[in-house]
Amino acid sequence: MSALRSDTRQKLAAASVSTLTNLMLKRGFRNAYMHGVVPLTATAANMVGPAYTLRFIPSREDIDTMAGYASEQNLHRRAIEECPSGHVLVIDAGGSTRAASAGDMMAARLKARGAAGIVTDGGYRDIADIEAVGLPAFQRQNAPPATPIALHAADLNVAIGCAGVAVYPGDIVVGGRDGVIVLPANLAVEIAEEAAGVAAYEEFVAEKIHAGRSMFGLFPATDDSRREYEAWLRAKTGR
Amino acid sequence: MSALRSDTRQKLAAASVSTLTNLMLKRGFRNAYMHGVVPLTATAANMVGPAYTLRFIPSREDIDTMAGYASEQNLHRRAIEECPSGHVLVIDAGGSTRAASAGDMMAARLKARGAAGIVTDGGYRDIADIEAVGLPAFQRQNAPPATPIALHAADLNVAIGCAGVAVYPGDIVVGGRDGVIVLPANLAVEIAEEAAGVAAYEEFVAEKIHAGRSMFGLFPATDDSRREYEAWLRAKTGR
Amino acid sequence: MSALRSDTRQKLAAASVSTLTNLMLKRGFRNAYMHGVVPLTATAANMVGPAYTLRFIPSREDIDTMAGYASEQNLHRRAIEECPSGHVLVIDAGGSTRAASAGDMMAARLKARGAAGIVTDGGYRDIADIEAVGLPAFQRQNAPPATPIALHAADLNVAIGCAGVAVYPGDIVVGGRDGVIVLPANLAVEIAEEAAGVAAYEEFVAEKIHAGRSMFGLFPATDDSRREYEAWLRAKTGR
Amino acid sequence: MSALRSDTRQKLAAASVSTLTNLMLKRGFRNAYMHGVVPLTATAANMVGPAYTLRFIPSREDIDTMAGYASEQNLHRRAIEECPSGHVLVIDAGGSTRAASAGDMMAARLKARGAAGIVTDGGYRDIADIEAVGLPAFQRQNAPPATPIALHAADLNVAIGCAGVAVYPGDIVVGGRDGVIVLPANLAVEIAEEAAGVAAYEEFVAEKIHAGRSMFGLFPATDDSRREYEAWLRAKTGR
Amino acid sequence: MSALRSDTRQKLAAASVSTLTNLMLKRGFRNAYMHGVVPLTATAANMVGPAYTLRFIPSREDIDTMAGYASEQNLHRRAIEECPSGHVLVIDAGGSTRAASAGDMMAARLKARGAAGIVTDGGYRDIADIEAVGLPAFQRQNAPPATPIALHAADLNVAIGCAGVAVYPGDIVVGGRDGVIVLPANLAVEIAEEAAGVAAYEEFVAEKIHAGRSMFGLFPATDDSRREYEAWLRAKTGR
Amino acid sequence: MSALRSDTRQKLAAASVSTLTNLMLKRGFRNAYMHGVVPLTATAANMVGPAYTLRFIPSREDIDTMAGYASEQNLHRRAIEECPSGHVLVIDAGGSTRAASAGDMMAARLKARGAAGIVTDGGYRDIADIEAVGLPAFQRQNAPPATPIALHAADLNVAIGCAGVAVYPGDIVVGGRDGVIVLPANLAVEIAEEAAGVAAYEEFVAEKIHAGRSMFGLFPATDDSRREYEAWLRAKTGR
Repeated sequence: MSALRSDTRQKLAAASVSTLTNLMLKRGFRNAYMHGVVPLTATAANMVGPAYTLRFIPSREDIDTMAGYASEQNLHRRAIEECPSGHVLVIDAGGSTRAASAGDMMAARLKARGAAGIVTDGGYRDIADIEAVGLPAFQRQNAPPATPIALHAADLNVAIGCAGVAVYPGDIVVGGRDGVIVLPANLAVEIAEEAAGVAAYEEFVAEKIHAGRSMFGLFPATDDSRREYEAWLRAKTGR
Repeated sequence: MSALRSDTRQKLAAASVSTLTNLMLKRGFRNAYMHGVVPLTATAANMVGPAYTLRFIPSREDIDTMAGYASEQNLHRRAIEECPSGHVLVIDAGGSTRAASAGDMMAARLKARGAAGIVTDGGYRDIADIEAVGLPAFQRQNAPPATPIALHAADLNVAIGCAGVAVYPGDIVVGGRDGVIVLPANLAVEIAEEAAGVAAYEEFVAEKIHAGRSMFGLFPATDDSRREYEAWLRAKTGR
Repeated sequence: MSALRSDTRQKLAAASVSTLTNLMLKRGFRNAYMHGVVPLTATAANMVGPAYTLRFIPSREDIDTMAGYASEQNLHRRAIEECPSGHVLVIDAGGSTRAASAGDMMAARLKARGAAGIVTDGGYRDIADIEAVGLPAFQRQNAPPATPIALHAADLNVAIGCAGVAVYPGDIVVGGRDGVIVLPANLAVEIAEEAAGVAAYEEFVAEKIHAGRSMFGLFPATDDSRREYEAWLRAKTGR
Repeated sequence: MSALRSDTRQKLAAASVSTLTNLMLKRGFRNAYMHGVVPLTATAANMVGPAYTLRFIPSREDIDTMAGYASEQNLHRRAIEECPSGHVLVIDAGGSTRAASAGDMMAARLKARGAAGIVTDGGYRDIADIEAVGLPAFQRQNAPPATPIALHAADLNVAIGCAGVAVYPGDIVVGGRDGVIVLPANLAVEIAEEAAGVAAYEEFVAEKIHAGRSMFGLFPATDDSRREYEAWLRAKTGR
Repeated sequence: MSALRSDTRQKLAAASVSTLTNLMLKRGFRNAYMHGVVPLTATAANMVGPAYTLRFIPSREDIDTMAGYASEQNLHRRAIEECPSGHVLVIDAGGSTRAASAGDMMAARLKARGAAGIVTDGGYRDIADIEAVGLPAFQRQNAPPATPIALHAADLNVAIGCAGVAVYPGDIVVGGRDGVIVLPANLAVEIAEEAAGVAAYEEFVAEKIHAGRSMFGLFPATDDSRREYEAWLRAKTGR
Repeated sequence: MSALRSDTRQKLAAASVSTLTNLMLKRGFRNAYMHGVVPLTATAANMVGPAYTLRFIPSREDIDTMAGYASEQNLHRRAIEECPSGHVLVIDAGGSTRAASAGDMMAARLKARGAAGIVTDGGYRDIADIEAVGLPAFQRQNAPPATPIALHAADLNVAIGCAGVAVYPGDIVVGGRDGVIVLPANLAVEIAEEAAGVAAYEEFVAEKIHAGRSMFGLFPATDDSRREYEAWLRAKTGR
């Protein structure tokens, strides 16, 4: 499972998910954003971490009883105990919001164990309490019914689909106000570096636009605007 | 029409909708939660009350004129005047958000008459004003167009479907941050009692999880965790 | 392109979108509200302005490269530079949220140029930054992926469809907490006048309902309630 | 309940559903066609008959058991026994295809009792056997699961919505290759008469188009084309 | 992997999918039918066989190239070569019809290898050729684009979800005119036996209904109708 | 507007739409197939022709009257008279099936004028009569209501989106049993050539698979299988 350097984590936490979609497109990836998945709460910083995955399939009445759910072998519960610190638990619920992908107790335990966040293409129960716990959480729609009503945990940490995006264990998951994007593990460092530069350039552009400049010649960047930006950056950083 | 004991109302107001879905599942009910129906505003306490129902069908141009709408016989307007105090007006709009299930005037009048809240599987108009009125309100999506554009009130207080859930007059409707659940009238007292116990146990679990305990052995409860909880409860309540 | 008198603009800014759907219905228009389009942020006053339109079609890999996107001839970027002050940029994205209809830079530039707002039946990227910019913005769902992934700007300021509503350049677009409505340019003045009267009558009704009066005889208005209202209005305005 | 004159029935059986949507629009009705409802089998002649309605709501586990289903009071089964000869059974399934609106036995019994057809905004089970029975049947999508899994019969012969269209008992229901349309009972005779004239005119136009004439001046009809048509009709009928 | 006795296979091939949903409901299974999955072609006999499964996830541009697709390790192609004779290949495409779950070559090879059929909750390419091959095939909607455009084969013969139904390897899959149902392997023999009895009883009922009898007292069966049926059966079979 | 060489037309008519999606993918085009658009009737040969386009927007009650519809300036009717012989009329209905994109008279006139076919992302009226006319026609779902109920013709022969695919006037549109694909005009000749080769190779593969060969080593082609194919081809064609 991929480790994530702390400077990479910081740079991705400071990046906009939208900027990351651009940097992915530049590398030929058109399908890295999870359409329709939204944060429970707007957060100041992004959620960032390697993916630890859980795969649900539909439940079946003879297998998915509340009794079976209590077992220590239940993969849903094991996912919560085994998701490594700093990781994001990413759940393939097959898009189903008929039952909960997780609830407040699970969010609290993940938070206590140091998880970076939780993402599902289904939904959660106890929304207010998950917000109180403070674990970054992303979903499609509230889904309070008890998990066994519709979902059965079938696998831990295999490659999954989530909201139409491939997620391989260890991929770097970034979530913020705009939603969630998945970066291939081997590209995370270089994308994080490039994102930091983009953010600085966008600060420069925002200042100029605020002052009344046209977007033409500024965005996308031209050779001239690059030079102007570098001067602005030197002036600003004093280097 | 069912009355609702005030202690039952209080216990349900304190319960989580998600907890109630569990207590329903335990009794064999898998389809009591209204998928896709959300509160206009997050509220501190739940909305609780017996259901008073309104059934819409699609409107027809020769019948559903604004003139006909003004009549005192109009069932939409009668629903507002006849929904008993303490009750929740539950509206079957056939899922249509093409026209308003209600607006701010109706919400204000329901509030003045003591209604506990309003629920539709369609949507409302004058959202900001409904929020200002303070009546708990649940819907799928904003629907400002005038009611006769798409909806005709066909029945008062009959059994209806709302967002895929059966609602019989007098059923107990509970709504909160997670959405809306419908409890059969004859089960409301026992579910309210059990919910109070669940809430206390979950407070105990939350404390333990916060302190770093695993969910295994705590949730779902075991014989051991039950005993530990009872000691915790005695210590806490001094009894 | 229609100008918009400033008193008309003020009256529409004070009107409820729901009231405007009524006034449109009265004139035979049943399909002026954009279903499913919501504001990024609840705002105190409505967005009001004549429509300036942008039509997207799906992108094609050989035409819609990031390089082509940088061109000054790119209609997406020209739309931002050419949308007149006081106007609302209305975007036909064919309902697609696969890629961004606009982002924070574009919102900032529109704001700097005096645009009244932006509307799409798709979605935006950099949501938090668009909110910070303060330009009223309406969409269906977040859409951070870069525009060329799914959208190609095909036309400026032609008649379009947006969220199922016809929008002709110069139509008056009003957006608020309830969503967005489109008024034919030639009806804007008379509707604005009538809306002001409706708002006053509704204030009178709200006061009476708050005091415990039934809706019957008040809403819709009767001859009696009209007379009572006029007296109330004279008393209130001292005229 | 409306009777239906046999010449009216014949004329409507010969009319195209599309022609009937035009004649309804001419009278101000824009919402009489059931979108998404299709015939099981293409038929030579239309299904025509007054509506006899059945209203479903979602089922509930304690009420909708297979035992309860066997009761002679079960409204689903009573609908089959009570739908009058010559009528169309129209079912409001709330659009649900989670369980069967009817199956082959019910279709066979309706056929034996002389019903004109069956329509649902849900679906049927035993599709092949329903086709073998020969009762005209219209649905959205196959729905073989047993009815009590998702549906509870709540009312017989009340006003319902079906696929977004209002259906009042006795309304005249016409179904064919294009789908299903609902005519207000009081307009059926005049619409049937007018439809017969339209069909003859369209035969005239088809002949001319086949011979290479432009649609302009033929369709919609002009004064000239009307005169030409009348000559054509006299020549053809020898009158 | 479960074997399937040939008499069980024959009895299930003769059973209606709708009858099987009833026999599943009787055993507490409410969610065994694949909603929205239809046969390419109406067939005389049902498709019957144990499930061999293939799990797709969304594709990713760097992994899912046409070159990689040619590899003998490609699980999509291995599924076709490894699905045992007499089995049904059941594909979890996550409901995606953006790319083909299979095409005519694969259908031809499955047919040549003795497979019983193929099922996907996505769709196929080369529909006409699959029909010509004669392999029973069930899908949601045509999906001709090349598989790597949207799908990546991630697993062979694990538990999957398909169209909202849990499918465990070896479960017995039955498909016909009504669609597809999944029977737990351990129940297949007893359900096949019971289905044969139901079919005979339904033949008896159909004969009576055709002769004008009411459904009451016949369907569901009563003690009296059971006795009458047994006499009918003895008379018919001469035993 | 592009002409289409008759040998190119023939080769595309003989090609499978699925094969064409592969040849487009090979050239970097992932989004050329119109998802959800199906033929009214299965046809022996493909529909092939350059696109002539019609753009609809939503109708508005004051503009889209039946009277206005009769005008010779009506673009809907002009599209039928102006679509060149051999071309395919491709209609952007914004995906709306609320009203007809065309009907039998229009289909008959297009046929008489030599059009190659008609495609919409909405639907048609008079389905049976369109089939009788024999013009290849593709749609999403039947849509009999009169056009002005929901659609207004806004443009002729501009770039449009249709079912999520960009269509530029003159693009080559191919439709068959699998649905519809759009080829950029400048690629049509080379794709037609390559498709002819693919079809021959697939005939070779089908023969081998039928004889029991594995797909591995045959599909996708290898150097060995290419050589074997060439021998097979020489033997077959005697060259």
